[in-house]
Amino acid sequence: MSHIAIVGAGLIGRAWAFVFARAGFQVRVWDMNQTVLDNLDADIAAMIAQTEPFGQAGADPRATAANIKGVATLEQALDGAILVQESGPEVLSIKRELFARLDAIAGAQTILASSSSALLASSFAEGLPGASRCLVGHPVNPPHLVPVVEISPAPFTAPEVTQRARQIYAQAGQVPVMLKREIDGFILNRLQAVVLAESLRLIEQGYVDVQGLDDTIRHGLGRRWAFMGPMETINLNAPGGAVDYLGRYGPMMAGLAETSARDEAFTPTAAQAVGAAFSAISTPDTVRARQDWRDSELAALAQHLSSRAAQNNQE
Amino acid sequence: MSHIAIVGAGLIGRAWAFVFARAGFQVRVWDMNQTVLDNLDADIAAMIAQTEPFGQAGADPRATAANIKGVATLEQALDGAILVQESGPEVLSIKRELFARLDAIAGAQTILASSSSALLASSFAEGLPGASRCLVGHPVNPPHLVPVVEISPAPFTAPEVTQRARQIYAQAGQVPVMLKREIDGFILNRLQAVVLAESLRLIEQGYVDVQGLDDTIRHGLGRRWAFMGPMETINLNAPGGAVDYLGRYGPMMAGLAETSARDEAFTPTAAQAVGAAFSAISTPDTVRARQDWRDSELAALAQHLSSRAAQNNQE
Repeated sequence: MSHIAIVGAGLIGRAWAFVFARAGFQVRVWDMNQTVLDNLDADIAAMIAQTEPFGQAGADPRATAANIKGVATLEQALDGAILVQESGPEVLSIKRELFARLDAIAGAQTILASSSSALLASSFAEGLPGASRCLVGHPVNPPHLVPVVEISPAPFTAPEVTQRARQIYAQAGQVPVMLKREIDGFILNRLQAVVLAESLRLIEQGYVDVQGLDDTIRHGLGRRWAFMGPMETINLNAPGGAVDYLGRYGPMMAGLAETSARDEAFTPTAAQAVGAAFSAISTPDTVRARQDWRDSELAALAQHLSSRAAQNNQE
Repeated sequence: MSHIAIVGAGLIGRAWAFVFARAGFQVRVWDMNQTVLDNLDADIAAMIAQTEPFGQAGADPRATAANIKGVATLEQALDGAILVQESGPEVLSIKRELFARLDAIAGAQTILASSSSALLASSFAEGLPGASRCLVGHPVNPPHLVPVVEISPAPFTAPEVTQRARQIYAQAGQVPVMLKREIDGFILNRLQAVVLAESLRLIEQGYVDVQGLDDTIRHGLGRRWAFMGPMETINLNAPGGAVDYLGRYGPMMAGLAETSARDEAFTPTAAQAVGAAFSAISTPDTVRARQDWRDSELAALAQHLSSRAAQNNQE
């Protein structure tokens, strides 16, 4: 019986289980920590309670819950799985050992995908007998509310495996982004890193405060980036499209990029300045409460964007 | 009679007129090109037709239109204005000359604000008798659908003028971001520039294609950035908030920023690669049609975000 196996059921692993289950996949969940498995049903129920009002818990939320089963052994999780989504610790030695174990247990057709954001598939899968079926499928937190998944194969990953992974993620309702070559940070965190560096610098050097920085994105660039990427954005900002835009404004943008911040911007002083702006939300309880707010807003936004896409398709 | 004066009524100037008028301000519009003035009523009517279905044309769209009057002379526009929003060409010599003229005509209490994205107030207002009432109020295109306005005073701008400008923009429903020191590109375009540089590099060097790059933002980072900034985003990505986040992930992010692209990424090859991805939308007509789609999506998103904010306030 083909299904998805979730290995490691922390926040990310559970959200992956939810993603696949609400799309109709059967999901088997294993975690080395029995308490995580004991709490699984309750945690999934809480995710359904939060997302159902926004239509993000699947066509039949009870079926979503029923599609997820915790299992007692890694072998049970993997037996017959079409794809394993591994969401364990981001430590190279642990990841290498876990992938060796997954590779030894899983059937030959099973894809082994890691949620890793920090490690490349070539680093943890090299030399395994089944290296060619290993890759990274990097989600954003939380994956059930932010649909992108970066698919980053190692040079030794079979192209057929990469394509199958892409189809499975798309069938699960995610948006796969295909990396053609490995690079640290993949695409998403590289883009986040340059925004963080320049933001921290502008704050620390006193050009703008934290609230102003966030407002500039939230009420400015982020409005367009919620439904278009930065490339389509520039394509619409000159009468002749992107080439016209880069001809007109490229030199100005290059000048700004030339003086942009890099790693030196990540100072303790900058961190303190940001922390001070969020002093009321800086403990596990207050952060968790605000994460709940964030997740409700993400669910509402997902519902809004789906509804707009449906309307645009009808027109 | 106090009102807002719009000087230069191209796309940006007209959108500014609309912003102020829908908030209940009286608006006087002047442009050196009579054709622009002749078309003003029709252009405003078109903006109302597009935004009214999304609740973005003001409480009474007919009143919004009625609040906007084209006038034949600069003197008529400026007489009694509380703020002049200048949206003329981005050429220093023209801007300097225009500001000298505005300063000579406008009453002493009138704020002179430029929409400039490329020029600093210190460059075009220095030495004017009324230099202390000059500043930049930089909008995003289109300002009636993207509310941020970057307020960038020169060192010689009176703090009282800056605060009054902030109040007027806020009263008009915009989100003012206060720059504490001048910097090329202000905040928004500096952040856009680093994203463009890294994006163009990742595309040109073959890590990802244009669609994948845009999907990474649109279905990834942009989802959170539409209602939180990047600083609040990281504040929610570690149990102890931003300081905890930067302690855990700062070194990784710094490593990615260290190897990020700068001005060298703005190559003709990269521009061609982006252009090729949008070859169907690269002429004035096709770009304009897609801009209409963008503006409808921005209006729908503005309505969604207002509705969410109202619900969160009620809870």
